[in-house]
Amino acid sequence: MHILITDQVDSVLIALLKKNRINYTFNLEKNEDEILEKIHDFDGMIVRNRLNINSTFLKKAINLKFIARYGSGMEKIDAQKAKELGITCFNAAEGNANSVGEHAAGMLLSLLHNITNSHQELSKNIWEREKNRGVELENMTIGIIGYGNTGSAFARKMINFDCEIIVYDKYKSDFGNKKIHEVNMETIYTKSDIVSFHVPLNDETLHMFNENFINNMCKQFYLINTSRGKVVSTTHLVNGLTNKTILGACLDVFENESEKFNSINIDDSFNYLVNCPNVIMTPHIAGLSKNANTKLSEIIVSKILALK
Amino acid sequence: MHILITDQVDSVLIALLKKNRINYTFNLEKNEDEILEKIHDFDGMIVRNRLNINSTFLKKAINLKFIARYGSGMEKIDAQKAKELGITCFNAAEGNANSVGEHAAGMLLSLLHNITNSHQELSKNIWEREKNRGVELENMTIGIIGYGNTGSAFARKMINFDCEIIVYDKYKSDFGNKKIHEVNMETIYTKSDIVSFHVPLNDETLHMFNENFINNMCKQFYLINTSRGKVVSTTHLVNGLTNKTILGACLDVFENESEKFNSINIDDSFNYLVNCPNVIMTPHIAGLSKNANTKLSEIIVSKILALK
Repeated sequence: MHILITDQVDSVLIALLKKNRINYTFNLEKNEDEILEKIHDFDGMIVRNRLNINSTFLKKAINLKFIARYGSGMEKIDAQKAKELGITCFNAAEGNANSVGEHAAGMLLSLLHNITNSHQELSKNIWEREKNRGVELENMTIGIIGYGNTGSAFARKMINFDCEIIVYDKYKSDFGNKKIHEVNMETIYTKSDIVSFHVPLNDETLHMFNENFINNMCKQFYLINTSRGKVVSTTHLVNGLTNKTILGACLDVFENESEKFNSINIDDSFNYLVNCPNVIMTPHIAGLSKNANTKLSEIIVSKILALK
Repeated sequence: MHILITDQVDSVLIALLKKNRINYTFNLEKNEDEILEKIHDFDGMIVRNRLNINSTFLKKAINLKFIARYGSGMEKIDAQKAKELGITCFNAAEGNANSVGEHAAGMLLSLLHNITNSHQELSKNIWEREKNRGVELENMTIGIIGYGNTGSAFARKMINFDCEIIVYDKYKSDFGNKKIHEVNMETIYTKSDIVSFHVPLNDETLHMFNENFINNMCKQFYLINTSRGKVVSTTHLVNGLTNKTILGACLDVFENESEKFNSINIDDSFNYLVNCPNVIMTPHIAGLSKNANTKLSEIIVSKILALK
């Protein structure tokens, strides 16, 4: 077996490939077209988000048996075409779910309790208590959209915060329990004080959070997005913050990130958001913990070995 | 009954006093000596942290039946002398425990996942992912010192984060359960990756976190202090951060806060801490949530009514 690795991966992955005597070749620079010339040599690929693995690419990958996504989002791979061609696609979303769950919890508590804000003030020697009084999560309702790896991790972490946890998943049912309540979208709109997105990016979820969504919400609310930037319409988010239908936002992902997530286009919306005292932003690091990196490597290799 | 209120309180408290026909007089300006001239007129006091209610003060308060602390810390009241004189002293620590628990959790997750740090970078248009990889709380051990209102609130919130929770309380036992383990100080030193203080300030706890404490710790660790600034020796904390025995710190309270907590003396230590990327600081707001303010008011009034 010979595997092509097209993106930066952790040293743990390399160590595990070596240990299991799996041959690999790195190609971190060449684009899709250049890689196409050699792709027939490979049985498998380990990718992150650099390449567009579309129908044309897949048709030329005549010996490819699998594409392993080192991470979770599969939006750069034409999974439908891959399936037709008998190429197995899988990710390692279990590996960074805990990291995302902790990160979402941290951003939310940091926003509600003015932690980031007041820390930034202290770094300017401003000691201001009254205006930094927080609001407690206790007795609020968290509406979670998507109950996959990260949605369920986040939900579970919040159980002991004495808030109500309601979850909608278009493709799952019977997952609810005493503490995590399965609901329809109508209930998400009606009850949520906080809405957190845990969906993949696809045609159905592109700009799922938009003017229409905001108008459907019954209360003022906080938004959390740790999924993909394009799930949220930035224009409508900015409008909602401006007219105060949205009380605040925790954003780890952005519409105008570059394709590889390694930079962001600084525009008016970005500057508006980053200067909002009720917005916390992080640079697409929710699933990027050091532990997640190790876990991703272990999961990827075990899934490759299981294919054999 | 006539009550003297010596500090700013929430409007909910005033509404509740009125509703229960309890007379009150505000005196937010005069110092201990000036108040002493009139203290014999009052049956009770509601205080925060402004006055030093020492033995001299208490001896002159000949009609005083109670001192209600609107908050939790009782360090400014000579409780021993009050007891001798038959004056009941109580606080409303139940009222802000949840706020402190959430705040401590938020600071910890924010520190571990570089939320505050990377947000601050984004506000300078710096998009940096690799160096902001977080570390997960999962599988760490949190050592909690003091299992009163805030210690137990924080412990409970952390239960679903898949970390081990160990607690030492010098004056309590048999409080442990399957998920929260009661231990001795030796075990706190041996096992903790994180140490969080939830103790009152008194002769026993003054500089309880010092060089000696740090030397007793077996692993590198993170410190959380949401109790009182003077529980931590700032000099020894700075040394520990400098020599990396301490991995990071979440500080809501500081040694060099003013007595009323309404300002801080900016010195070299403060400037060192505020510029550490692995230190998060908030201006003594952990227990100050809007909800806590309401709860404190309700608890104080119900305790006053129970005295009648």
